[in-house]
Amino acid sequence: MTTDDSAPFRVGLLGHGTVGSAVAELLPDRADAIAHVTGLRPEISGVLTRSRGDFDEILANSDLIVEVMGGTDTARDHVVRALRAGKHVVTANKQLLAEHGEELWGLARENRVQLRFEAAVAGVVPVIRVLQESLTGQHVERLHGIVNGTTNYILTQMAATGASYESALADAQQLGYAESDPTDDVTGKDAAAKMAILARLAFDTPVHLSDVPYEGIEHLTGEDIAYARDLGLSLRLIGSAERLDGKLAVRVHPAFLYAGHPLASVDGSFNAVTIESPAITEITLSGPGAGGSQTATAVIGDVISAMIPPAQTPPTQHRLGFVDDVVSSFYLHVEVADRPGVLAQIAQVLGLQGVSVKSVVQKGTRKGSAPGEPGQSRLVLVVHPVLESRFYGAVQLIASKDFVTATPRAIRVIDEEFGA
Amino acid sequence: MTTDDSAPFRVGLLGHGTVGSAVAELLPDRADAIAHVTGLRPEISGVLTRSRGDFDEILANSDLIVEVMGGTDTARDHVVRALRAGKHVVTANKQLLAEHGEELWGLARENRVQLRFEAAVAGVVPVIRVLQESLTGQHVERLHGIVNGTTNYILTQMAATGASYESALADAQQLGYAESDPTDDVTGKDAAAKMAILARLAFDTPVHLSDVPYEGIEHLTGEDIAYARDLGLSLRLIGSAERLDGKLAVRVHPAFLYAGHPLASVDGSFNAVTIESPAITEITLSGPGAGGSQTATAVIGDVISAMIPPAQTPPTQHRLGFVDDVVSSFYLHVEVADRPGVLAQIAQVLGLQGVSVKSVVQKGTRKGSAPGEPGQSRLVLVVHPVLESRFYGAVQLIASKDFVTATPRAIRVIDEEFGA
Repeated sequence: MTTDDSAPFRVGLLGHGTVGSAVAELLPDRADAIAHVTGLRPEISGVLTRSRGDFDEILANSDLIVEVMGGTDTARDHVVRALRAGKHVVTANKQLLAEHGEELWGLARENRVQLRFEAAVAGVVPVIRVLQESLTGQHVERLHGIVNGTTNYILTQMAATGASYESALADAQQLGYAESDPTDDVTGKDAAAKMAILARLAFDTPVHLSDVPYEGIEHLTGEDIAYARDLGLSLRLIGSAERLDGKLAVRVHPAFLYAGHPLASVDGSFNAVTIESPAITEITLSGPGAGGSQTATAVIGDVISAMIPPAQTPPTQHRLGFVDDVVSSFYLHVEVADRPGVLAQIAQVLGLQGVSVKSVVQKGTRKGSAPGEPGQSRLVLVVHPVLESRFYGAVQLIASKDFVTATPRAIRVIDEEFGA
Repeated sequence: MTTDDSAPFRVGLLGHGTVGSAVAELLPDRADAIAHVTGLRPEISGVLTRSRGDFDEILANSDLIVEVMGGTDTARDHVVRALRAGKHVVTANKQLLAEHGEELWGLARENRVQLRFEAAVAGVVPVIRVLQESLTGQHVERLHGIVNGTTNYILTQMAATGASYESALADAQQLGYAESDPTDDVTGKDAAAKMAILARLAFDTPVHLSDVPYEGIEHLTGEDIAYARDLGLSLRLIGSAERLDGKLAVRVHPAFLYAGHPLASVDGSFNAVTIESPAITEITLSGPGAGGSQTATAVIGDVISAMIPPAQTPPTQHRLGFVDDVVSSFYLHVEVADRPGVLAQIAQVLGLQGVSVKSVVQKGTRKGSAPGEPGQSRLVLVVHPVLESRFYGAVQLIASKDFVTATPRAIRVIDEEFGA
């Protein structure tokens, strides 16, 4: 893989499931960019699966071990041995950290290596880095999180389609959002492990999985959701961790959220965490909580951070040109004299410029003051994505029409597919 | 300030306005926590204001310079000299970086010191760290940002109250969300500088303020917003940066967002940035984009990162107890026989347990099948925050009533004030 003179940085991979195989695929893709930033070129030095690979050999040939095998027995043994051997470790294993975190973090400190775990909570959403780095030494008052994508998908589906829990779960399984044995997800145990990790970091106190009471979503019904909608609430599986009179409450349970809550609009399999502290008010981080390439991206971010700890702004590699004309959807507001054929003329100008109308609202605003004199009317159009130059060309033509009584106003629309 | 044997880390402060004075106040407050994490104790080694302090003296006595004075002339001179002197620099100055970033980042690399600038874009929202660290080497496709709190506050007010632009601006000025000369904010220039910085990091190509066309919000009317509401859109000042056929488009302009867009629900003076990339789908970061203590928190996060680059998980300092019983709001669903006095009895049980009812919906579900036989009815209540043990005690009493025909269902409600 070495195509320049960057020194190699050897990454041993434990596990080759969804996340492991995505790491194995993405890391070589990003090797050039990473070498540019770090001066080191990452390469996979070995892969351990159930059927192949030898841990000792991989360990001996690696500078860093990525643990994405899951489970708490073998994984713990391998991580312990890697740390003792003075290797950095990046893991996505929440159960391992929720049960054995203090031991492992202690070993990392003793051996002066890094143990990084962004992917263990909320996938690529950078909540671990933000808690550990951006907010170091801050007094955090409370966390709220949607940290399990499976249950969030099921609840969103129940709300959107009126499906029962059982049928939404079956859908989630078919789409790969839920495993064939969904117990850890739907009982809240998976979310509890993640909240244990977040609370440990936020409050600087040991938190074990067994300290986190959890309640799942299996008992929820479509009726609960329907009534809640009448009350203006949305139903989510929420992890919370907060200070209460010098103690801590860390829990996972279904909860209704008012529409204005920053987590209320987190839909589908997305995850999100809100961090509250007097000095920062609150920040919310959201994004995909699972998925092979998403979780692998979090793993790779950790690998890079372990390669070159100090953040630098490297010289740019590119010198991209700047675009003059882009495609956008638009809203157009035109005041016109209310006489026959006005809308047709506007539509014709737009059509000639290749601008296609998505919706129109027309409203009379004032009657003519003398008999026979036309009244005033207002047209509000939304148009489909089009080159800006073409759209503004059409607007200029429309503005020049004698029936237009005020300068038309145009504002861009960012549409559901996030732009053109 | 040194109360233990941590070595001092000397921070020179340039500027003592809103952000500078908050840094001077918060840094000593957090010194113990920072010493715990880094082994170094930060202390303010000098403050430069317009009327007092000597830059050369402060520079000589500092390990790191915090530049929060603003402007691009003196600030640039001081930052250049600090970097050349081998000192780390933390700055909140977006105009400085949007105009002279390449020079300054280059100087930092040459002198092997850090130049950090989280506070320059979106205040405490950790978008710089996420772009530089979590997403190192990722192919970013597009960014969308609400990166100016003043204009977002004005637009939110116009939508919420129907106020005109002029009156919403006056409100914002009175509340301190807008400066007495709001030109840079309302014209989009401030947002353009921030987008130049974000685009530079995301796309690894030089981006100067002059490469970013911008359009402000001064020409928007309450009518635009009212019509947009009819169309299901919300109006925001949006910064965008995206790849288009190997070139870049970085712009700032008002835009309508569909209700489902992750930025559509960002209200008031909050900022938010959405980062899109094939590998990560999209992540959204949101929080306060300004404010003294919020921006100072971002500055201090950068100071800490410069003090001890490798992220470690330090041993916990606390051993907090766990709370058994917490206060929560609840939704309660009870199926009852539809006979007189049922609601009164339930209300009485709740009242005796100190549970206060916020809202009730009652609905008949089935008529009695024989004359004189009571029908079925369903009660859905939302109660005000109360200790869980008391609430569940009341639910148990209610469940034991002979008119209750199914196990009541209780689900927590997270209320508008984010819990009790």
